[in-house]
Amino acid sequence: MKDYYKKSLALHKKHGGKIELKSKVSLRNRDELSLAYTPGVAAVSMEIGKDNKKAFEYTLKKNTVAIVSDGSAILGLGNLGPYAAIPVMEGKAAILKEFAGVDAFPICLDMQDTEEIIKAVKQIAPVFGAINLEDISAPRCFEIESRLRAELTIPVMHDDQHGTAVVVLAGLINALKLRKLKKETAKIIFNGAGAAGTAVTYLLIKYGFKNIVVCDSEGAIYEGRPGLNKEKQQLAKVTNPNKIIGKLAEVIVGSEIFIGVSKAGLLTSEMMRTMAKNPIIFALANPIPEIMPNVAKLAGAFIVATGRSDFDNQLNNSLGFPGLFRGALDNRIKQFDDKIFIRAAEAVAKFVKKPTPDKILPNMFEKGLVKAVSKTVY
Amino acid sequence: MKDYYKKSLALHKKHGGKIELKSKVSLRNRDELSLAYTPGVAAVSMEIGKDNKKAFEYTLKKNTVAIVSDGSAILGLGNLGPYAAIPVMEGKAAILKEFAGVDAFPICLDMQDTEEIIKAVKQIAPVFGAINLEDISAPRCFEIESRLRAELTIPVMHDDQHGTAVVVLAGLINALKLRKLKKETAKIIFNGAGAAGTAVTYLLIKYGFKNIVVCDSEGAIYEGRPGLNKEKQQLAKVTNPNKIIGKLAEVIVGSEIFIGVSKAGLLTSEMMRTMAKNPIIFALANPIPEIMPNVAKLAGAFIVATGRSDFDNQLNNSLGFPGLFRGALDNRIKQFDDKIFIRAAEAVAKFVKKPTPDKILPNMFEKGLVKAVSKTVY
Repeated sequence: MKDYYKKSLALHKKHGGKIELKSKVSLRNRDELSLAYTPGVAAVSMEIGKDNKKAFEYTLKKNTVAIVSDGSAILGLGNLGPYAAIPVMEGKAAILKEFAGVDAFPICLDMQDTEEIIKAVKQIAPVFGAINLEDISAPRCFEIESRLRAELTIPVMHDDQHGTAVVVLAGLINALKLRKLKKETAKIIFNGAGAAGTAVTYLLIKYGFKNIVVCDSEGAIYEGRPGLNKEKQQLAKVTNPNKIIGKLAEVIVGSEIFIGVSKAGLLTSEMMRTMAKNPIIFALANPIPEIMPNVAKLAGAFIVATGRSDFDNQLNNSLGFPGLFRGALDNRIKQFDDKIFIRAAEAVAKFVKKPTPDKILPNMFEKGLVKAVSKTVY
Repeated sequence: MKDYYKKSLALHKKHGGKIELKSKVSLRNRDELSLAYTPGVAAVSMEIGKDNKKAFEYTLKKNTVAIVSDGSAILGLGNLGPYAAIPVMEGKAAILKEFAGVDAFPICLDMQDTEEIIKAVKQIAPVFGAINLEDISAPRCFEIESRLRAELTIPVMHDDQHGTAVVVLAGLINALKLRKLKKETAKIIFNGAGAAGTAVTYLLIKYGFKNIVVCDSEGAIYEGRPGLNKEKQQLAKVTNPNKIIGKLAEVIVGSEIFIGVSKAGLLTSEMMRTMAKNPIIFALANPIPEIMPNVAKLAGAFIVATGRSDFDNQLNNSLGFPGLFRGALDNRIKQFDDKIFIRAAEAVAKFVKKPTPDKILPNMFEKGLVKAVSKTVY
C-alpha cells in the first residue's frame, strides 16, 4: 500500500489533477469563433430560452454528469471534507470518460447539511444530464437521494448505494448458481448497515431473497430493537423474518452467505466454521477485508470475493456505474429504479460466460461490459 | 446574422455542446487504476485532508475556473434563464482552453436571488482556482462580486464588468495617443450605466480620467438627480464634475470621446457633429452598435471601435479574460484589483506595435497576447 501511496502522490502532483476540459470545436479564426461564440451562439441561447429541454441537444448537458460529494464519507477514510474529496471524484470522472465516454465533473460542496445539499444540487442541475452522488455519509445520503429523485427531472444515483448493490447482486447470482442455492431459501448474514449495506439489502429483497439478517455493531437488527434510527427501523421490517437476536458470532450460525460491508477482520475462522458447509463469503471492507481470502478458504469457503484488485473475484463499483450512467444519458431515462438495477446486475452476471468459484464477475477491462450494462438502463 | 445563426445551431447540434472532459492519466490496466483511483488516491485525500491548500497541487483546482451565470443578462438577449446561458458559458470555456490553456466549467444556477447566488458559489468553490462571473444583470452583479471577493479565498472577476473595462481602457490608451488627447482633460460621454458602463467608468477614473459624464436612458447622471439607485448615486459622486444636466443629445456637445455600452442606433450623425472635432467613438452595443462605423466616419469620427469582428477595431473581452485568468491561476493571486486591470490594459495597448486609427487593438489570434496580459496579473 505504501508504494501505491507514494506513486499516487507523485502522479497527482505531476499532472496537477487528473481531468481537464477540452474544446470539441475548432477556434482557429474569426469565422469559427463567430459560430461557437458571439454572434452565432445567440441563436442557440434563444432556442433554449424558448424550450429548456433543447439544452439536451445543443449543450454539454447531453453527455455530462455531476459527481457530487460533501466529503463526509471518503472511501474508508471518513469525514475529511470537500477538498479531500476532489481527487476521488476526479478519479471517478476519469473512469467515466475512459470506460464509458461520459463527461463528468466533480462538484465538491463546502457544507454538510442535508437540506443545503439538496438545494445546491438542484441549483446547479441545469448543466447536467444526470447526478452521481458520491461519498456522502449515511443516513443523510438516503434522504438526499430520495428527495433529489423526486424534485429533479434528471436521473440521480448514489453510487455507494446502488453501484455497490448492482455488483453484489451480480456476484451473488453467479455464486448461487455455482453453489446450487435458491434465493428464496438461502440464508444471508449481512454485516454493516451503512449506505452500501442498506441499499444492497433492499435490492436483494426486491430480487427475491427472503432470509436476510442485517447486523450492525450491536448485532442483528430486528423489529423493536431499542434505539434503532428511522432507517434501521425500516430495514428491520423487511429483514430478519425469524426475529433472531444476538451478536454476529451468534446469528451467523447455519447461514450460507456472509456479506460484509463493515470493517477489517470482523469475520473469524471460528465464526465461519459455524456457517453451513461451503459458505459464500463476500468480504468487502476496503482496503482490508473482513477476512483475508486465504484464511476464508482454509476455513471452508466455497467462494470468496473482496473489493481488492489483487485477489480473485474483485467486487468493484466500476463494473456498474460507467454502464449505468452511459445508459441513463443515452436513453434519457426519467429516473433510476430497482428494475434497472436488477437488469443491470443480471447483465453483469451474464457477462461471465463460464462462471467458476474464482471468477464470478467480469473485470472492468473486458470489452463490451459497459455496453451490456447500458442497454439495461431504460 | 441569419447565416451565422443557422450554422451555429447546426454546429452545436452536431457536437452536442462544445466542451468535453478528458482524463490526463492513463487507465489501461489495474496498476494504473490503482494509482489514479483506489487504493492509491487515498493518500492524496489524506494529504489534502490535513491541509486543504494542497488541493492546488494535487487536483484540477490548480488550473480550473468556474464560469458562473444565472442567465439573467445573456449577451444582449436579456433574462433567458440558466439553461439558455449554457452555450455561452461553454463558448467561454472553449476560448479559455484554446487560447490560455485554462480549464473552465460552466455553473449555470437555477435561481436569481443575490444572497442565494453568493451562497451557492461559496458552496461549490472547493474545486475551483478562480471564479468568472458572467452574464449576471446589474445591479445584482456588483453586490455578488464584491461579497464573493471578500468572502472567498480565490480570485473572483465579473468579466462583463472588468474584462470590458480592461479592453476599453486599452483601446482608449492608444486612441488618446493617436488623437493627442490627455486623460486629465479629455471629455468623455458614456452612454449606458449597466454592469459594463459602471465598471469601465470606475477603471477610467482610477487610471486618471477626470471628466466623464455617464448617461442612462434619462440622460446625464448627476448628484442629486431624483430616483437614482444606490449604484448610480455612487457613480454620480465621482463623475460629471461640472454637474451638467440633460439628455444625451444635449450633454454630448463639445465632448471628445463617446463610449456606448447601450443600444443600437442611440448615437446619430447630428449628435456627433456637435462633439469636438475628430471625435473618438466606441460604439459597443452588440450585435448592432450605437452608430455604424461608416456613418460615424462620414460624420467626422477620427477613430471608431465596435464589438464586431467584421469591422476594424474590434473591442472584445476575449482580448482580456484569457490572459487575466491564466495569470490569476499561474501566480495564485489573492484577488483581482484595479491595479491589475490597469496593468493588463496597458499590456494590451502596448501589444499593438504601431497603432493607427484603424488598428488601436490587437486581435485575439495574435501570438503572445495572452502571455503579455497574464504577466501583469500579480
